[in-house]
Amino acid sequence: MKKLINDPNNVVEEMMKGMAAAHHDVLKHVPDTAVLTRVERTAGKVGIVSGGGSGHEPSHAGFVGKGMLDAAVCGPVFTSPGPDQVLEGIKAADSGAGVLLVIKNYSGDVMNFEMAMELAEMETITVDKVIVNDDVAVEDSTYTTGRRGIAGTVFVHKIAGAKAETGAPLAEVKASAEKAIRNVRSMGMALSACTIPAAGKPGFEMAENEMEIGMGIHGEPGIERTLLKTADEVAEELISKILQDGVHKSGDEVAVMINGLGSTPLMELYILNGKVSDILEEKGITVYKTFVGEYMTAIEMAGCSVSLLKLDDELKELLDAPAHTTAFRM
Amino acid sequence: MKKLINDPNNVVEEMMKGMAAAHHDVLKHVPDTAVLTRVERTAGKVGIVSGGGSGHEPSHAGFVGKGMLDAAVCGPVFTSPGPDQVLEGIKAADSGAGVLLVIKNYSGDVMNFEMAMELAEMETITVDKVIVNDDVAVEDSTYTTGRRGIAGTVFVHKIAGAKAETGAPLAEVKASAEKAIRNVRSMGMALSACTIPAAGKPGFEMAENEMEIGMGIHGEPGIERTLLKTADEVAEELISKILQDGVHKSGDEVAVMINGLGSTPLMELYILNGKVSDILEEKGITVYKTFVGEYMTAIEMAGCSVSLLKLDDELKELLDAPAHTTAFRM
Repeated sequence: MKKLINDPNNVVEEMMKGMAAAHHDVLKHVPDTAVLTRVERTAGKVGIVSGGGSGHEPSHAGFVGKGMLDAAVCGPVFTSPGPDQVLEGIKAADSGAGVLLVIKNYSGDVMNFEMAMELAEMETITVDKVIVNDDVAVEDSTYTTGRRGIAGTVFVHKIAGAKAETGAPLAEVKASAEKAIRNVRSMGMALSACTIPAAGKPGFEMAENEMEIGMGIHGEPGIERTLLKTADEVAEELISKILQDGVHKSGDEVAVMINGLGSTPLMELYILNGKVSDILEEKGITVYKTFVGEYMTAIEMAGCSVSLLKLDDELKELLDAPAHTTAFRM
Repeated sequence: MKKLINDPNNVVEEMMKGMAAAHHDVLKHVPDTAVLTRVERTAGKVGIVSGGGSGHEPSHAGFVGKGMLDAAVCGPVFTSPGPDQVLEGIKAADSGAGVLLVIKNYSGDVMNFEMAMELAEMETITVDKVIVNDDVAVEDSTYTTGRRGIAGTVFVHKIAGAKAETGAPLAEVKASAEKAIRNVRSMGMALSACTIPAAGKPGFEMAENEMEIGMGIHGEPGIERTLLKTADEVAEELISKILQDGVHKSGDEVAVMINGLGSTPLMELYILNGKVSDILEEKGITVYKTFVGEYMTAIEMAGCSVSLLKLDDELKELLDAPAHTTAFRM
């Protein structure tokens, strides 16, 4: 295992320390917790909390800041944080107007975030939740009942965060987040596995001439293990499967996210985007904005995902609203 | 070779297409050239041009936009663009107030950018240059006489670009860029090699238990091939060598850049930053701002570099000035 780390069992704590040191103008570590929260609070605003297992950086703490999240809960690598830590995140995010949890659809996350909701309600904090399940690759997977939540979650952070910043009440913030969830679909592929530091070896094997279409962000199985395909072929497959889901049609306007999983160079993501952009134009789908980079990674996995978010006037305004986080600035 | 590409000989052209498609609000491709330039021009402003071989994305086109570069010249992977293409970049950036070239110190880049200066002067465009040589690892290297230019170059883009945006004349923009160059030092290390697409195999071999301290961004030799060290040990070595150069002393204020070379996860860069931050505090050096992410990569090399920029009031103001590029926003 080649990693630039100290103790494999201490990577999340050390990451939180280094992140808070780097960005002390934007976020801070809540002592003795797995929570990174905003430095500058907006009083009376609905708090937005997300999180999950670590290893998906910049998700989720990279999106803590004005216009997006109020707190991120950093679980162990690829492992859901416990309800007590999610509760700490809720407390850090609460300023009296209630808190919305943005949960990726993995059984452990859903269970622990829901338990934290109950704990918070006992402390008289109003909490609601949305569950993101944007990955069209497979129904039910290694850690998931239903569809998995992947990079489309970042669009949900942006939309919910921007809505909360307007001073809207919890029910309206939730409604906007749910609209984003209804409108976003994603699909990924991988060229290589990744290694959980404490495991010390890759989670699975992939031959030098293979790739996997539809793979999840923890290495969960996709829909096709295949010989290497070109970027154009991969773009065709991912977009084709996303459009089959029926949410995005000719005449629609969309935001596109071309997300790197960890070790895929920006050059390759842009090559993929060239084809994605052509395909969407052919299909009569207008691209309003495109985001290319690492938003939801799988440690150092090589591969990518493509997400499409269908936009209306409300979502465009929320997408364009200011965001001042360490990994997303508008 | 596992890459998400189409034709290995066409990666730069396809990248430029995908990049212009993604960010048409910020940059555009100058047809039939290797140049990406700003959409929104500021008339009468000194133009800033950088570039070099591709494979270092987001350098350099990711820094095209308000507050940084006016044009980036995208050479073949790890190969300097020809003088004719640099001339196209100069023309795209010129709005009558002259153009400053920010050149990384590699022999091919220096030669071709200087030839382009002569060609531009024949077309009566005033052009000047600065050469960045921030890498303290080695004197003279595979492609370089003197010290190499690496990630510290991004600070020079920011400082020169911000100064140009104030309307300052060419000589003053050059003076600020040269101050940044005098004040910035960097050093890197690598855990793995990278593969130029057209070559199809890694540029060198490194054993599973080895790393190299001081390696260049094209895989040029460093100062020590060693068994794997911890992140803390790497931080100590890099900072120690940078400080030995004598530019950064107790009482100074600095900007820090923790730069990933391509496949090193953000988690690891933050772990490194935790130690860098501690060391600088011990040394009495105050960190004004920290940048963590991929700024100057080596395709999919695993590894990082650390850069320190000594600040004064002028450099702080220029560093904090607005920048609206695809890879750097303030």
